[in-house]
Amino acid sequence: MTLPKKAVCYFGDGKADASATDRDVIGGKGANLAEMTRIGLPVPSGFTISTEICSAYYQNGRSFPDGLENRVHMALRRVERSMGASFGDISNPLLLSVRSGARVSMPGMMDTVLNLGLNDATVQGIIERTQNPRFAYDSYRRFVQMYGDVVLGLRPASSHESDPFEELLDLAKRDSGVEFDHELTALDLKALVARFKDVIRERTGKPFPEDPYRQLWGAIGAVFGSWMNTRAIAYRRLNGIPGDWGTGVNVQAMVFGNMGDDCGTGVAFTRDPATGEKKFYGEFLINAQGEDVVAGTRTPLPIDKMKRVMPKVYKQLTRIQGVLEKHYRDVQDIEFTIQRNKLWMLQTRAAKRTGKSAVRIAVDMVEERLIQKEEALSRVTAEQIEQFLSPGFDPNAKRNAVESGQVLGKGLPAGPGAASGRLAFSAEEAERLAREKEPVILARIETSPEDIHGMAVAVGILTARGGMTSHAALVARQMGKVCVAGWGSVEINYKSRKMVVGGRSYKEGDWISLDGTTGEVIQGHLETRPSEVVRVIRGKSKAKGKKSEYGAFSRIMQWADEVRHLGVRANADQPDQAKLAIAFGAEGVGLCRTEHMFFGEKRIEAMREMILADDSETRRKALARVLPIQRKDFVGLFRAMSGRPVTIRTLDPPLHEFLPKTEKEIRALAADMGVKPAHLLSRVGSLSEQNPMLGHRGCRLGISHPEITEMQARAIFEAACDVKREGKKVLPEIMIPLVSHPHELREQERVVRRVADEVFKRRKMTVPYFVGTMIELPRAALTANEIAEYAEFFSFGTNDLTQTTLGISRDDSSKFLPHYITHEIFRREPFATLDQKGVGELMRIGIERGRAARPDIEIGICGEHGGDPPTVQFCHDIGIDYVSCSPFRIPIARLAAAHAELRERETLSARKARRASANGRPRNRVRNIRPPSASSKKIGAKAKVTRKAVKKTYARG
Amino acid sequence: MTLPKKAVCYFGDGKADASATDRDVIGGKGANLAEMTRIGLPVPSGFTISTEICSAYYQNGRSFPDGLENRVHMALRRVERSMGASFGDISNPLLLSVRSGARVSMPGMMDTVLNLGLNDATVQGIIERTQNPRFAYDSYRRFVQMYGDVVLGLRPASSHESDPFEELLDLAKRDSGVEFDHELTALDLKALVARFKDVIRERTGKPFPEDPYRQLWGAIGAVFGSWMNTRAIAYRRLNGIPGDWGTGVNVQAMVFGNMGDDCGTGVAFTRDPATGEKKFYGEFLINAQGEDVVAGTRTPLPIDKMKRVMPKVYKQLTRIQGVLEKHYRDVQDIEFTIQRNKLWMLQTRAAKRTGKSAVRIAVDMVEERLIQKEEALSRVTAEQIEQFLSPGFDPNAKRNAVESGQVLGKGLPAGPGAASGRLAFSAEEAERLAREKEPVILARIETSPEDIHGMAVAVGILTARGGMTSHAALVARQMGKVCVAGWGSVEINYKSRKMVVGGRSYKEGDWISLDGTTGEVIQGHLETRPSEVVRVIRGKSKAKGKKSEYGAFSRIMQWADEVRHLGVRANADQPDQAKLAIAFGAEGVGLCRTEHMFFGEKRIEAMREMILADDSETRRKALARVLPIQRKDFVGLFRAMSGRPVTIRTLDPPLHEFLPKTEKEIRALAADMGVKPAHLLSRVGSLSEQNPMLGHRGCRLGISHPEITEMQARAIFEAACDVKREGKKVLPEIMIPLVSHPHELREQERVVRRVADEVFKRRKMTVPYFVGTMIELPRAALTANEIAEYAEFFSFGTNDLTQTTLGISRDDSSKFLPHYITHEIFRREPFATLDQKGVGELMRIGIERGRAARPDIEIGICGEHGGDPPTVQFCHDIGIDYVSCSPFRIPIARLAAAHAELRERETLSARKARRASANGRPRNRVRNIRPPSASSKKIGAKAKVTRKAVKKTYARG
Repeated sequence: MTLPKKAVCYFGDGKADASATDRDVIGGKGANLAEMTRIGLPVPSGFTISTEICSAYYQNGRSFPDGLENRVHMALRRVERSMGASFGDISNPLLLSVRSGARVSMPGMMDTVLNLGLNDATVQGIIERTQNPRFAYDSYRRFVQMYGDVVLGLRPASSHESDPFEELLDLAKRDSGVEFDHELTALDLKALVARFKDVIRERTGKPFPEDPYRQLWGAIGAVFGSWMNTRAIAYRRLNGIPGDWGTGVNVQAMVFGNMGDDCGTGVAFTRDPATGEKKFYGEFLINAQGEDVVAGTRTPLPIDKMKRVMPKVYKQLTRIQGVLEKHYRDVQDIEFTIQRNKLWMLQTRAAKRTGKSAVRIAVDMVEERLIQKEEALSRVTAEQIEQFLSPGFDPNAKRNAVESGQVLGKGLPAGPGAASGRLAFSAEEAERLAREKEPVILARIETSPEDIHGMAVAVGILTARGGMTSHAALVARQMGKVCVAGWGSVEINYKSRKMVVGGRSYKEGDWISLDGTTGEVIQGHLETRPSEVVRVIRGKSKAKGKKSEYGAFSRIMQWADEVRHLGVRANADQPDQAKLAIAFGAEGVGLCRTEHMFFGEKRIEAMREMILADDSETRRKALARVLPIQRKDFVGLFRAMSGRPVTIRTLDPPLHEFLPKTEKEIRALAADMGVKPAHLLSRVGSLSEQNPMLGHRGCRLGISHPEITEMQARAIFEAACDVKREGKKVLPEIMIPLVSHPHELREQERVVRRVADEVFKRRKMTVPYFVGTMIELPRAALTANEIAEYAEFFSFGTNDLTQTTLGISRDDSSKFLPHYITHEIFRREPFATLDQKGVGELMRIGIERGRAARPDIEIGICGEHGGDPPTVQFCHDIGIDYVSCSPFRIPIARLAAAHAELRERETLSARKARRASANGRPRNRVRNIRPPSASSKKIGAKAKVTRKAVKKTYARG
Repeated sequence: MTLPKKAVCYFGDGKADASATDRDVIGGKGANLAEMTRIGLPVPSGFTISTEICSAYYQNGRSFPDGLENRVHMALRRVERSMGASFGDISNPLLLSVRSGARVSMPGMMDTVLNLGLNDATVQGIIERTQNPRFAYDSYRRFVQMYGDVVLGLRPASSHESDPFEELLDLAKRDSGVEFDHELTALDLKALVARFKDVIRERTGKPFPEDPYRQLWGAIGAVFGSWMNTRAIAYRRLNGIPGDWGTGVNVQAMVFGNMGDDCGTGVAFTRDPATGEKKFYGEFLINAQGEDVVAGTRTPLPIDKMKRVMPKVYKQLTRIQGVLEKHYRDVQDIEFTIQRNKLWMLQTRAAKRTGKSAVRIAVDMVEERLIQKEEALSRVTAEQIEQFLSPGFDPNAKRNAVESGQVLGKGLPAGPGAASGRLAFSAEEAERLAREKEPVILARIETSPEDIHGMAVAVGILTARGGMTSHAALVARQMGKVCVAGWGSVEINYKSRKMVVGGRSYKEGDWISLDGTTGEVIQGHLETRPSEVVRVIRGKSKAKGKKSEYGAFSRIMQWADEVRHLGVRANADQPDQAKLAIAFGAEGVGLCRTEHMFFGEKRIEAMREMILADDSETRRKALARVLPIQRKDFVGLFRAMSGRPVTIRTLDPPLHEFLPKTEKEIRALAADMGVKPAHLLSRVGSLSEQNPMLGHRGCRLGISHPEITEMQARAIFEAACDVKREGKKVLPEIMIPLVSHPHELREQERVVRRVADEVFKRRKMTVPYFVGTMIELPRAALTANEIAEYAEFFSFGTNDLTQTTLGISRDDSSKFLPHYITHEIFRREPFATLDQKGVGELMRIGIERGRAARPDIEIGICGEHGGDPPTVQFCHDIGIDYVSCSPFRIPIARLAAAHAELRERETLSARKARRASANGRPRNRVRNIRPPSASSKKIGAKAKVTRKAVKKTYARG
């Protein structure tokens, strides 16, 4: 293999082989180091080995490609020249850091080695030059430990095993009678290095490598190797990162924050990552290495304290953070080190942020004219909106807790929100509790990447050590988990599985509550309550102006609505739900499940009488009692939706769902109803089904008992007339469920239209309405052209369509689906995120054939997938007209729809750009890519226009 | 509308406007009348109004198109000239018959009016010319009655209502003290005509039309109208005849077989329609009208009796029947009338025949060089083969019945075969019993088209009146039902719901048995036994040479095999089934359901232990006990199939199917197994599912419990090695069920191949084998390209694919599917005949995508549809390699496969011919026709070649 041009990219002294645009090739960290160098910021020199080399390394059976050694050594020479020190030189040794850096940040997932280049000879050079033997041996001790852990594989596989180096360290402290690492003397540390090396020889059978070049190549290999460690693989799976991207390796001259009190290290954000407030925000530690901050082993100082301690450096740092934010036009998360009063920038990257801050920052930056609305929109993720809307504690419950002394103390508010759950002290226990459907609070002294799987299932995370930028805090914010970090007053004991605070002891399984916004830890279970936005929307709180949470949220949503083409409707059965849906931005009701209306008290009685009727006459009588109730429901719904379309599905579930199941319940009901138990038992028996999901339900009910559909249609049209008479507009869309054959729809459509004609004639008025169908069986999608003959609209019922297409009963899937997900047989839970290749393919077919037969047919989706962002994207792509989801997910769907539109624009302009630049170049690369379904999109667009025209006509009339 | 050229086609005196090739335009009866006229046979003159006019009539809102009247009157003038009589002429009136005639025969379904043209004036002309007032008034009486029934709609709607004309006729006979119609005098009949007319005026409010032209147009309209009567619609539905074909109307000069003893009428076949024997066969009645024979109201004489009574006519008739069979190259069913010693041919058509006769005739005609093998093949229907293979009575049981005096008597052997069932005296009662899953014998005095629905559900039909060509006999033979007709010694009383014979009385619900081959009626229930062919195949009887039933059957099957391209395999689990399948012509096992093997005694115990195991270790131990049993099964199967492919499906049903259901059974089993009932109960509870069809089964079991798949694979490969060591060839194909995602197949394929390697290594030998999958979920068909990456073959499991594609649980479908079929929501039962638009579309997609990824993939179908002729045709058309069905249906599948190939050849040559003749003609007509899936067919053909090469290689090796 000839090495690509960017296989090894040097940066230093204001020059760099790469820039921020090379992130895909050399990884994010390297690209940003190069970029910072280019714009003149103080960055220790170094070089980046590209991600392509990582891929080559794996393709080569884990060996380095030819020519790499040469290129690395050439780059190393430039670093030596720039830093004025030589790698392996005894008198003036250059020390290196070796870190991973992938295309996207995978915090803590992969390996780092610092102080590389130290050995028994070079350590002497450091001592000579620094005149600080303690610093030199401390660095050496850290290096050997890290190298042993990372490169030589001595790191314990789980948190239950002990780390041999940590044990020796603890032993040394005990021997010396000191409490903290930094109290150990140079001699202690020197002895410790020797003992570390003994352990290495014992465990690996080989001596610690003294040769700096062997150290370097070992570390590079270890970084590549860490790409495939189980943590990294799990993280990629969780975040949908392809395994073949690979990681870059950043080799950089070491600078030291731990040479004395004129040194330090820190992490900062250009704005508050929790609230989004525009203020320089961060933490630093005097006389410390960077890892001390990130790992959270010492609790750092707030950044503004630096103003007093190191005023010059602070001034320079605040200037630089401003430059970086302007340059990147986004909030930056920066790492820096001060070595003997000189500031070095070690990293910059877009800051992770909470939902609240993401919204605030996006809106603020538009006001500051830093970014455009579209960019602001694309920076707020659906997950962040979800988090933004998630609940806090009920204020009364909280006040009671405070007043009754249940607040145990206060840590750092590292992940906002409120959570209440059962204590777990290990990731394993957290998973066990989660499997039992218990909410879990994971409490750890500090967290490490090994805890990720426990954090993923927890509702909240509590740590005893570590700051706002500790591992726990970073990961929690990213996952949208509530987190209280660095709660120093607690003692957590893993062995006894207890935590003790102020003399009170809490064991695994006990209830604990975390307020991630204040940092409070509260004993017992506390009720949570809706977010400010939800309270405003529900009318339980007033909006507090443009700068309030609600204000910022509203603007983001308004921009989303300006951008998106996809409609968003709500699944709602009751007037109050409908009102909430409108407040959340719904443009209509996409699914009103009429059966939910039957479960009220008197209603279920009439339903049961109807079901037990022996002939259609008695059935009609019972239905006549249901009619006024149902009509009232629809009146409420139509009023609430005032003219927006309301899609009403006729009765769907099998009739036995309205009857009790056990013999005892049946006997009780029979007594209540005054019928013979035997009669009721036999009726229940005759209605019971082997596979109710595939049984006598949906339109099959309406076809065998047309009187049910008649009653429902009558209730709908009478309600529509009533509301129209009030002067309001009404637009009912009657939706027939479980259609597999056009004749089924034809039968039911006839009934609906006949009843409509009857009602309109009697009321001497008409109301516009549509009749359509669910597409929720594979056959319906396949014969959509024939079904469209009778359907004015389609709505994909992706819940049932998933069940039938995959042949999986959702109710029974828990027996094998979790195994499928953990073993990557299915990449995603198909009932949460739409299976695009199977179910999605049927949707494509259904849309194409449906529109071929009826170009102006309106097509929606009303399965629970309608509020899932990747599914919303897919719906946009295949030309669906609207998604319908639960009211609470509507803002997420609106944003996801805007994102889909923005992504389409991006793809289009990228394609244009590619076309413009592709004169004469071979185009093999794109040949195998599936062409976008341009035709259906086009038809979709056209349909939308036609449809709009229809509605406009109606609106006028 | 300008009338088409063939709107009205005259025939008479050796000249005809149409011929036999015009059957689609003018109907079968008219085309054959024209053809007989052309070849010089004596046919009364007449004309045919084409089926296009019928369609125009319905499109016109049931009114005749302009210009028709003129054309009819012109044709009528030619008939008058030819017959030397004038329509409506008082002194020499021409009388007409008006009959329906569609493209295909629909016996008795539509209406006929005879003696049309009679009125109070013309009847005098008849009297003058015949000098036979009794004949004249009898004809007049029949005409008025028929006209009242057919044209004026006085015919009772069901057999429960009384016919006003029949009541008056009975009254007249009682008044005159006579028993039979023919004993009534001219005066009686004259009075009866007057009374008939009174009834007509009373019931319709209008007088009987005396004007012959009004009579004619009324009758033509009635024939057109009868196309849409409920009987005809039901018949068309039953036989798949499109409703828009329409019927022709044949208007023909009357000739009379009832003018005296030199007159007569009859029906005959050119060969015996029951056995196929080459002998002129038929019946006639002296001094009777044709309807007397067909209706079966008088029992006629065998045709050879005519030799003595009318030797000249008999000689002419035997000559004519020979001419007709040679001319049409098929057995003819002819109707004739003798008027004053002159023979008139009234109809010829291809004779309906039993399965036995169809096979015999086809084989004989090839030997006689009348037809080619291919034509012989295409004349034997799958239904006939099915009937041919159907059972007769067990000879011992029959002998006992004869000896113990249970034989009640003997009627005409009108529908061969043997049937035993419960008596029903009405179609309604027959349907009621059939719904209760009881076999039914429908007993009627005589049958009429109103009884069709009862005949359809009966296993046998018994009538007291009517001959071998009566309605009951014709329909029974066509439906393949056992029938004893014209059993004169029985008295059937509809009111008391009893039949009495020889003093013994039998009521509804009593068991009765019919031998349709001998005509015997036997009391009680008699066991039936296999047909001769099945007995020979099972080795229970010896083949009796080329002329035997088995001999003829074998030749037809051999020709079918020469023609067909589609492979035919058997669904078989046991060695004896496999042997039977080979004897029936199976080329392999297409589906061995391994779970059937687990239901034997000791086996189910080990299975249950396996299911109740708490860990995979105990499970493995239990499985180790199942292994040798399973291996033995496979050894037997491989030996029986000696080298033919054997497709073995791994465990498919959910585990709870192996456990009892009720608490009582569970407790009993727990006691047997020595486990705690609570443990067993909880295990059964935890395994129970909401929708087992969509639950934890198929490959999902093998993935969560790989040890099950391992055990099965081990049993297969060890068995294969054992049999190979015996010197026999083995070709196992391991089939993974319920795959929806390629990863599922990948997981299971790995297990199978790993076990194969292990077994081959230990046994130091290898056996060729394939690993493939069922395609039985929509997702599998849609992603067939990805699945084909791991599958060497596909087998469409159309049972489950139907359930999921249509969303119908077969077990629960009885609640709505019958309603769907009777209301024509579904045209066919989708579990009997494949739903081509839905399930078939997924198969097309699966085949196309599967072959795109792996061109040589072998594709079969193993659902129960594999033995259904229309499905076999479809499988041929979409390029399936083989069908697999139950052993008994294999001959049917072989024949259906040959038919499919012949139809394809026909279509191809027709297309060629069309192309050759289509120079310059616009081709709009074909534009909207879906192009045949030529590409997949081609690939299919190629795949077949490749596959054959693979097998050849194997066969050599």
